[in-house]
Amino acid sequence: MPDTFRDRIAAYTERVEERLDAALPQPSTDPRRLHEAMRYAVLNGGKRVRPLLVYAAGECLGVDAALLDAPAVAIELIHAFSLVHDDLPAMDDDDLRRGKPTVHVKYDEATAILAADALQPLAFAVLSQQQAIPAAVRIGLVRLIANACGSTGMTGGQSIDLAAEGNSMSAEALELMYALKTGALIHAAVMSACLLREDVSAADTRAIDAFGHAIGVAFQIKDDILDIEGETHVIGKQAGADERLGKATYPGLFGLDRSRRRCDELLDGALQHLERFGDEATPLKWLARFIVERGQ
Amino acid sequence: MPDTFRDRIAAYTERVEERLDAALPQPSTDPRRLHEAMRYAVLNGGKRVRPLLVYAAGECLGVDAALLDAPAVAIELIHAFSLVHDDLPAMDDDDLRRGKPTVHVKYDEATAILAADALQPLAFAVLSQQQAIPAAVRIGLVRLIANACGSTGMTGGQSIDLAAEGNSMSAEALELMYALKTGALIHAAVMSACLLREDVSAADTRAIDAFGHAIGVAFQIKDDILDIEGETHVIGKQAGADERLGKATYPGLFGLDRSRRRCDELLDGALQHLERFGDEATPLKWLARFIVERGQ
Repeated sequence: MPDTFRDRIAAYTERVEERLDAALPQPSTDPRRLHEAMRYAVLNGGKRVRPLLVYAAGECLGVDAALLDAPAVAIELIHAFSLVHDDLPAMDDDDLRRGKPTVHVKYDEATAILAADALQPLAFAVLSQQQAIPAAVRIGLVRLIANACGSTGMTGGQSIDLAAEGNSMSAEALELMYALKTGALIHAAVMSACLLREDVSAADTRAIDAFGHAIGVAFQIKDDILDIEGETHVIGKQAGADERLGKATYPGLFGLDRSRRRCDELLDGALQHLERFGDEATPLKWLARFIVERGQ
Repeated sequence: MPDTFRDRIAAYTERVEERLDAALPQPSTDPRRLHEAMRYAVLNGGKRVRPLLVYAAGECLGVDAALLDAPAVAIELIHAFSLVHDDLPAMDDDDLRRGKPTVHVKYDEATAILAADALQPLAFAVLSQQQAIPAAVRIGLVRLIANACGSTGMTGGQSIDLAAEGNSMSAEALELMYALKTGALIHAAVMSACLLREDVSAADTRAIDAFGHAIGVAFQIKDDILDIEGETHVIGKQAGADERLGKATYPGLFGLDRSRRRCDELLDGALQHLERFGDEATPLKWLARFIVERGQ
């Protein structure tokens, strides 16, 4: 029986959980409440899709897994920070996240703001400290991930998302917003493997780049479909929250059928970009299918 | 007449304003409202004490000013981000900052949260992009500044500050909180010059380190004194805000006289640490005195 990426998902997930645990400050050190809240925000049973993408892209390009830990952890910390701020009363005002009270409900709003504010620099500290990665590559990773989470990446996408509430949007504008708010960090996850493979060809980089872009947008459309189809106890947050908020979403604007078709189309395109890598791309292909076909 | 640092303050301030303006996204690029809010948060007539400390420490150690721009800009962006979140309703709930509406009043709460969230990665992007600085030194700056603004630095100090509202504290605990919430970034400002002077001696580094620590705590005590003594139109924010919030402050707990004495004591100690540098330390000494003797 072949050793597939699916078989190794549990091991990779355990690996990133251990690395996240080690990177986070201990709850027994001051300021304790802040450190508890940071850990609560991160160690919450998340699917770890972004770290898994880092490892799978690394397998595709033949990068040593030990070098992939730092970007995997950093990107997940950034993702966790963004969820905490997204859930705040002034933003999406969500009480539940993965079936548990959100950070501002469990602690308080000020602690939630600060815990997330502290997760972001922790991500850059983790990247800066990975001695096994050459300094020039580490700096490349800092730049990649800083740009992915800034105003022309994830945070910019969230800003457009909030401004779009109650408004119509073209499919192109909507996909651009998705490419920023969700796609930027997913794209950074797979691109980090390219940076770590210093002799990567321009053509391979372009293929991973296009794959990351397509799968990032597909991920968000799938999230929107799940928000409509899902039941609260399965998706772990209030189902139908997007509709309640008047969010501009793909299924909301174009219907579930067209959304599913667009998701499949993006997946097909993404998989084609990986053909050039042969069997080495099997992990990344499996993960791309998982993203589009998952039930939560 | 000697060319003193004071004479060059205007030039350095103009320099950092230009660099900040260039580092910030243009308001004409999408997402416009977010970019406008980011610029409003940063280009607001701040005193730029932290960038000035970077340049003055650089003069003390003979570092080329061109190398100091990136840390000067990055640290000011981090400072600006922290002020925006500090002013939020869930935190200090301030309506005025430097005599103008705070970001969440001028725009809205969600925009303020996101604008600040985007300023933080911009700081790390700026550091990562400064090609004139060797990659290993850039990574050192990323680590220094990331640690200074995380949970065991600035953000941790803000968390302790909020938890301390209405409570008494020992002078030692209060100074530790000040060393984090205000001192960490001021300390990082002067230490960034040490990192850029790659052949700096351990003794010189210790002296700058001790100077940074002392002047950071003195800066916050002086801020607290001004909050009590100052008039709203002079300090640019609501005078007496600390007392209204029940903040644990040095003058609040130990009186104005003892606060002034402690400030002077910290200044004297800070200046003594600079003696070993001779005339090269004149800019840093002038700035230290300015911090403790300023009227706003």
